[in-house]
Amino acid sequence: MFITFEGIDGSGKSTQLALVARRLRDAGRAVVETVEPGGTVIGRKIRQILLDPEHSALSPVAELLLYFAARAQNVDEVIQPALRRGAVVLSDRFTDSTLVYQGHGRGLGADTVLALDRVACRGLAPNLTLFLDIAVDTALDRARQRGADRMEAEDHVFYQRVRDAYHALSAAEPARVIPIDATGSPDAVAARVWTVVSARLK
Amino acid sequence: MFITFEGIDGSGKSTQLALVARRLRDAGRAVVETVEPGGTVIGRKIRQILLDPEHSALSPVAELLLYFAARAQNVDEVIQPALRRGAVVLSDRFTDSTLVYQGHGRGLGADTVLALDRVACRGLAPNLTLFLDIAVDTALDRARQRGADRMEAEDHVFYQRVRDAYHALSAAEPARVIPIDATGSPDAVAARVWTVVSARLK
Repeated sequence: MFITFEGIDGSGKSTQLALVARRLRDAGRAVVETVEPGGTVIGRKIRQILLDPEHSALSPVAELLLYFAARAQNVDEVIQPALRRGAVVLSDRFTDSTLVYQGHGRGLGADTVLALDRVACRGLAPNLTLFLDIAVDTALDRARQRGADRMEAEDHVFYQRVRDAYHALSAAEPARVIPIDATGSPDAVAARVWTVVSARLK
Repeated sequence: MFITFEGIDGSGKSTQLALVARRLRDAGRAVVETVEPGGTVIGRKIRQILLDPEHSALSPVAELLLYFAARAQNVDEVIQPALRRGAVVLSDRFTDSTLVYQGHGRGLGADTVLALDRVACRGLAPNLTLFLDIAVDTALDRARQRGADRMEAEDHVFYQRVRDAYHALSAAEPARVIPIDATGSPDAVAARVWTVVSARLK
């Protein structure tokens, strides 16, 4: 079982992932948590290149390829070995993030992103994707409180395009990509998330 | 005019590239020299990840994507701007290296490499490729004298497969990929290289 957590920055993905991981472990499940692009040592070095504010010259296509390099490493080193031994894998972002941020947000096109997904993931796709949905203003306020990096200094219009793309993805794949209302307290959101996850794990 | 220098490590590519650059500049041409994967600041950071001996866990697919990320950055930041202003661009390695090292040498397949080339290079291909051809033992001796890194610690069988793939490439694209006998002194090789380059620049 491979579950991904998606949403714009500040939507509460990471918090919700940790809560699901704890609840699954309490229920006796083996759980592996990972995060993109930084889920491996090599991924964290790639992330340094992606997020360095001095790299304003980073070309959009190079950025796209770096995300997929980190993803391929995560698939080979963490995700596939964990799935093979029967663990539930929870990933904070996966290809859907690249599709909405780079494919739609930056206009590189879904075809290009999906071509790279075939190379990097070789058919691996999430069984369930939780799309934590929140208004752009609320999410940006949360993200800024944690300190902005290069990605989080983007503007409101960009994030609205990304949020719209997540909604389109959910409409295109309703059985896999489940929107979750991400407003309210972490516990309130966690109850909504758990309803979806527990139904799939039965 | 976009000219690439290819061959196994220790074949003398870099030396020959520098000699061609000097000769073109002496003839009044604008010349831009670059090297893959380290032709840009971002490319050099990617190269550190690729060549770090601690990264023995680097997955073959992640490695492939990192090479193309460096290439996309080089195309956008260095090669295309130089070609647009009419310079001759000389590159120490390009997609052919990935094709023979990763596609054939590591068995990832030419189709995968060419799919990534379409994303990273968007149709840019060399006008002329000089394949500096030398026996594997001779090349490995030269490479070891400069101090081995991760790539240069590979074995003889691997390099023979790479050399064979360069020959197949030259047979498939005889007008673009020109084999050059890379044995003998740098000056002797330079004379052979210049015969080919000067004929193309007329």
